[in-house]
Amino acid sequence: MPLVRVHNFTISLDGFATGEGQSFDAPFGHAGQRLHQWFFATSTFQGMFGPGGGSHGVDDMIASAWNEGVGAEIMGRRKFGPQQGPWDESEEWNGWWGEEPPFHTPCFIMTHYPRPSVEMKGGTTFHFVSAEPEEVLRQAREAAGDLDVRIGGGPTTVRAFLAADLIDLMHVVVVPIILGRGVRLWDGLEGLEERFDIESVSSPAGVVHMTFQRRPRE
Amino acid sequence: MPLVRVHNFTISLDGFATGEGQSFDAPFGHAGQRLHQWFFATSTFQGMFGPGGGSHGVDDMIASAWNEGVGAEIMGRRKFGPQQGPWDESEEWNGWWGEEPPFHTPCFIMTHYPRPSVEMKGGTTFHFVSAEPEEVLRQAREAAGDLDVRIGGGPTTVRAFLAADLIDLMHVVVVPIILGRGVRLWDGLEGLEERFDIESVSSPAGVVHMTFQRRPRE
Repeated sequence: MPLVRVHNFTISLDGFATGEGQSFDAPFGHAGQRLHQWFFATSTFQGMFGPGGGSHGVDDMIASAWNEGVGAEIMGRRKFGPQQGPWDESEEWNGWWGEEPPFHTPCFIMTHYPRPSVEMKGGTTFHFVSAEPEEVLRQAREAAGDLDVRIGGGPTTVRAFLAADLIDLMHVVVVPIILGRGVRLWDGLEGLEERFDIESVSSPAGVVHMTFQRRPRE
Repeated sequence: MPLVRVHNFTISLDGFATGEGQSFDAPFGHAGQRLHQWFFATSTFQGMFGPGGGSHGVDDMIASAWNEGVGAEIMGRRKFGPQQGPWDESEEWNGWWGEEPPFHTPCFIMTHYPRPSVEMKGGTTFHFVSAEPEEVLRQAREAAGDLDVRIGGGPTTVRAFLAADLIDLMHVVVVPIILGRGVRLWDGLEGLEERFDIESVSSPAGVVHMTFQRRPRE
């Protein structure tokens, strides 16, 4: 059975995966770029959008696992863009990532306002789905075939899939900053640790990588 | 100048240092003993209340720094006991720790309801002070002489001293459990990282030890 995976999902020490006040100029709100400095430095990140550069150390090796064997992504609408409510048809918004997004697979965007699918360069297709996590996952699994499905974020989406017990592997990165406000990952997940084997390792960059592996279901 | 230090201060992954529903039977509320399992296993903890036993590994070595060079402790009333409001004079409550508490120094308990000081066996004296952090620290420093002052918790007390920028060294232990409710450490401390040099290390027991060292004040 292919896995449902979360990778490089970064939170502050106080548990926020994004800040307050998301906008076109600030995809992570007041958090700015503080959460993902560790990631921007990696070859994995820099290779997504150009010829590369970037570090090849521990952070990069762990980060690089994100796309191997993944056949589809599910993301929340707030990862896709800052808009709320019905789409403004006067402007076509296809995400933050330009004409060739770094996913290279079908991507299912969870929204209460479906719109026609959009095929981007490089193999990424955006599908817009208004459904519960189980149904969105069913569609993503079908699109992924024998490959895994990645839950790409944001926190509300990851939390919903954790609450529904649909995640097999989650990689969380804890950054030693206190954001104070935004959207928390852990709300409503009391006792989550009982379902997972959890490992932690600190990296020289000062972040802590945590893996959550779902224990065998009975 | 002697330091103001926090040691072995343990929080869940979602930032709670104590659970909900503190009582005489449950000093940490619904968290039970889950937060401090790592600590109970150490020789440092087991040596506080008897002839010893316990582990001597990484967790113990880090934990053992808690009392060296400390001449006084400050704690919140909720660390001292679960009561609220005026003290019930029909019963004499002198903390959870029996006749010989493990502090062996003067301890200043922050409470809006002062009562006479109590001298315990082994050098611990409980003083009850209704004052702001700065004033309580002034009294504790005077009692500690050339030695350091420990802020013993709980979270409300540590947070108040962090907010007042009175802490020089803080050791926080992050345990991979999701408590969901209780009292958080980090609330209201946005941007705290700008004042501290922060290090992290994971231990084989699965917890992450973090140190916060106050940067030189200008």
